[in-house]
Amino acid sequence: MTQAIWVWDLMANQLPADRVAKSAPFTPLAASLPASVPFVGPEALERQRGVRFTARIGANESVFGPSPRAVAAMRAAAGEAWKYCDPENHELKLALAAHHGIRPENVVVGEGIDGLFGYIVRMFVEPGVSVATSAGAYPTYNFHVTGFGGRLVTVPYRDDREDPTALVELAAREQARLIYFANPDNPMGTWWNAGAVASLIEAVPDGALLCLDEAYIDFAPAGTAPAINADDPRVIRFRTFSKAHGMAGARVGYAIGEAKVIKRFDAIRNHFGVNRMAQAGALASLGDAEHIAWVVAQVAAARDRIASIAAASGLKTLPSATNFVAIDCGRDGTFARAVLDDLIARGIFVRMPGVAPLNRCIRVSAGTTADLDAFEAALPAALRAASSG
Amino acid sequence: MTQAIWVWDLMANQLPADRVAKSAPFTPLAASLPASVPFVGPEALERQRGVRFTARIGANESVFGPSPRAVAAMRAAAGEAWKYCDPENHELKLALAAHHGIRPENVVVGEGIDGLFGYIVRMFVEPGVSVATSAGAYPTYNFHVTGFGGRLVTVPYRDDREDPTALVELAAREQARLIYFANPDNPMGTWWNAGAVASLIEAVPDGALLCLDEAYIDFAPAGTAPAINADDPRVIRFRTFSKAHGMAGARVGYAIGEAKVIKRFDAIRNHFGVNRMAQAGALASLGDAEHIAWVVAQVAAARDRIASIAAASGLKTLPSATNFVAIDCGRDGTFARAVLDDLIARGIFVRMPGVAPLNRCIRVSAGTTADLDAFEAALPAALRAASSG
Repeated sequence: MTQAIWVWDLMANQLPADRVAKSAPFTPLAASLPASVPFVGPEALERQRGVRFTARIGANESVFGPSPRAVAAMRAAAGEAWKYCDPENHELKLALAAHHGIRPENVVVGEGIDGLFGYIVRMFVEPGVSVATSAGAYPTYNFHVTGFGGRLVTVPYRDDREDPTALVELAAREQARLIYFANPDNPMGTWWNAGAVASLIEAVPDGALLCLDEAYIDFAPAGTAPAINADDPRVIRFRTFSKAHGMAGARVGYAIGEAKVIKRFDAIRNHFGVNRMAQAGALASLGDAEHIAWVVAQVAAARDRIASIAAASGLKTLPSATNFVAIDCGRDGTFARAVLDDLIARGIFVRMPGVAPLNRCIRVSAGTTADLDAFEAALPAALRAASSG
Repeated sequence: MTQAIWVWDLMANQLPADRVAKSAPFTPLAASLPASVPFVGPEALERQRGVRFTARIGANESVFGPSPRAVAAMRAAAGEAWKYCDPENHELKLALAAHHGIRPENVVVGEGIDGLFGYIVRMFVEPGVSVATSAGAYPTYNFHVTGFGGRLVTVPYRDDREDPTALVELAAREQARLIYFANPDNPMGTWWNAGAVASLIEAVPDGALLCLDEAYIDFAPAGTAPAINADDPRVIRFRTFSKAHGMAGARVGYAIGEAKVIKRFDAIRNHFGVNRMAQAGALASLGDAEHIAWVVAQVAAARDRIASIAAASGLKTLPSATNFVAIDCGRDGTFARAVLDDLIARGIFVRMPGVAPLNRCIRVSAGTTADLDAFEAALPAALRAASSG
């Protein structure tokens, strides 16, 4: 086939060499956004330190790994990576609907809960719109609210739990359009029972939508999640394959909500955003309830061990319905930060809440026996170093 | 560890049973967006037809597959899918910078070019802002412009190529803030040489940014891509692992541009958006130039064969610098649509341009020998059916 070469002489239009181009301006909103990012990854810390972490127990990942079925499905799909993924996430969506006993019209699959948060915020938030959350709750949600020009209003945690009564009162007072509530909570690990959450849903003010983040729900006691009423216009629920399913690196989350809202994702989302291997892996993982049950048991044992390790150093832990435990370091945020920094220097990757008084704690994810051995060895020294610092 | 159960009696606040909740309102922009999506995937067509396609040669995927090294890297990474991906895409970004001889500060990695288009549009476009493109060019770019309230202004293709002179004139006249230009072009496969593109960059009006989509550049003759001047504030260039690298399902694209613009992605992007397996696969693929060269050769042979198949039916093809060929069906869009529909009914997945006069063509991706055998067998019958229809 002949491939003609054309000539185009726009060269004649070229501007003088001394011309200084005037850059395209960002939108005022984009220009105003802070440069800060919600989380620094452990890899970045490793690069800074020049050493690998001994224990990676800071990001609430599932060290117990994905289902072997999911790994096999992802490996099989890797050979077909030349094909675009199904932009409708059809098979996974149907499987999720069947899993929850709801209609596919009430489910949207996205690039992790983080990706879905970006979309839900974009649908409802523009400059001037208020969004209610708890001071110290999930920062990536706030990142998106700020990113779309929303105004964040907050209530404090109460007894280390998100405070639903104060939250809905705030939302009503501030005419918040979105309300963020995580159950179980991150970063504290605390939770409310299903009746309390159902009451919160009932109390959502007119004109507001509750974003109920249930990322950790698989680890919670029975009776923590209220029954799913998918068509309830007051709530949209978020679930993920990043926690109990052990697929954080795959980026698959989903939301369950009113069909009208779910359909609107299609008007804005990155349709081909969910990786082909991720779709296959999530589908396989959904079929492996046995693996999830095993992970949940491992996590429960790890939580107990973290509590024992803390107790051996005279520290209290918060009850947790998640795959991590908040350890109360017994003093202020500066002290907890010193403990955390020392743990990191000893090769233990952990994180901590960002807001007082939550930041008296460090947050330790369920680890393998080896991970927790390393943590156990490091904690007393870190506490000594922080105390003498 | 004791897991206390709290009781919360917001039940007292419950609203009367006859209350009808008032849903949260979408933003006016979100509410106004059309429900249409840029592309319907072949899987959706298969579900409609109830039959699998014999030949999947409609989405410009690389049927020649990813590098074996990339497949191996993705398979190895699948076992570590429990770890979040590096939100900085650090290793891949460094490798890309080294590959292009530029600084990492000039590179951003994202969830395919589609994902990056969403971000770049969000940075620069708000209601009232104009964006210039060609009528019939990449619809997903337009999807994002519309999605952020931008006003699309277009010029027609000229001789089946995007018309850079008309495009910059339009952009200047309409004070467009972004300009979209693909080289080589999709859906026509045509291209301009490096000098012409360099001239286009020179002619970008003050206050505008050229989005130069080079998704297909690996298939183009030497001398098609102008030298990369990463700090040029007038242009941001987009590349992908979806085409020559055969990793469309992995979702990895990247952009090269001025550090100031690249840094702004961090203020809005989904930081953990690029799947862990995808990052590992892309890194491995970047190191396998031999595979890319082999794919490019296979594609060139497939293009020639598509041209021969078309010629045997008396049809002309357009010269192509991509992994697909536009076949001119010789009549109008209605006729080409009939040919396409008949091909699809015969199990051949192909696509076509959406705008006249481009839509006198169907667009056939480079296929395997078996794919093109099937296409060869189906085309004469499809043409007959369309002629008699």
